[in-house]
Amino acid sequence: MSRSPGRKQENHKISRELFVLTYGALVAQLCKDYEKDEDVNACLDRMGYSIGVRLVDDFLARSAVRKCRSYSETADMIAQVAFKMYLGVTPSVSCSSATGNEFSLILDKNPLVDFVEELPAERASLCYCNLLCGVIRGALEMVHLAAEVTFLQDRLKGDAVTEIGITFLRKPEDRKHKRN
Amino acid sequence: MSRSPGRKQENHKISRELFVLTYGALVAQLCKDYEKDEDVNACLDRMGYSIGVRLVDDFLARSAVRKCRSYSETADMIAQVAFKMYLGVTPSVSCSSATGNEFSLILDKNPLVDFVEELPAERASLCYCNLLCGVIRGALEMVHLAAEVTFLQDRLKGDAVTEIGITFLRKPEDRKHKRN
Repeated sequence: MSRSPGRKQENHKISRELFVLTYGALVAQLCKDYEKDEDVNACLDRMGYSIGVRLVDDFLARSAVRKCRSYSETADMIAQVAFKMYLGVTPSVSCSSATGNEFSLILDKNPLVDFVEELPAERASLCYCNLLCGVIRGALEMVHLAAEVTFLQDRLKGDAVTEIGITFLRKPEDRKHKRN
Repeated sequence: MSRSPGRKQENHKISRELFVLTYGALVAQLCKDYEKDEDVNACLDRMGYSIGVRLVDDFLARSAVRKCRSYSETADMIAQVAFKMYLGVTPSVSCSSATGNEFSLILDKNPLVDFVEELPAERASLCYCNLLCGVIRGALEMVHLAAEVTFLQDRLKGDAVTEIGITFLRKPEDRKHKRN
């Protein structure tokens, strides 16, 4: 007795709820493993970095985007193409420096915290979604862009929005090239 | 300078690749935490159970399915509605016992192992996707169905397909009711 459904083309999407709860299990496990919030944050960032390094090939293949010509274009690409593709949301982007290498991704609603109401008092320094920062950092590094990526605001900590800051780091060879 | 995209309705889907890599990070962390495969498997099952317990409300609300009248209908519902909704795949279902309480969900392709080629030799007893068994067990328990859920075959271990076995456990009060 076997009932096989008609074979439709399988898509690349899964439910956000399952992801959110699985991510929650990961963070909870790290909170068991590490006493200090800083260690949990660093571990999430490292894990995210490894994910970003592997995810970037998938992103380039599926998005078929062309090479970005500026940091501004890169920040837009992360927000409007990558976030949309991987998390189903589109943060707004703002440039926060006169030098043009600092950007913020602003999320009215953070898709990773649907089931989280607030952080426990003893985990006040936890960057719950720090994996995302690592993913962005890892993916950027694979396209030869060094960046610092951190949470600047977090609704889980009572801020009005969730804000991820991306600072593109100018490489020494860039400056050298400019001098020549 | 702020560029906010047009607000489309946000969906409940995220990319499978991100989920698969995040799940991989979770399993890798547990392999660091526990030396024995059995302990990793048990931990994944426990985590899955907690997820299933929470996910079932979301499932009932979004699927708007009616109450199943038999174990067979329940197994079909898990495969054709729940797997489709949460993982974007539809296993085939087979009933594997004359008593009508044992079913198999058969996956030609396991969506959780896209980036996993094979288990390392020292992790031969790892049930990599054991979280799924826990999710099914937890969700069933919340609709008052006790079940044992285990992997019977696993392509990661060289089997031809991945097969999840569900054995519905008849409750003592069922038998009592039948006797009355």
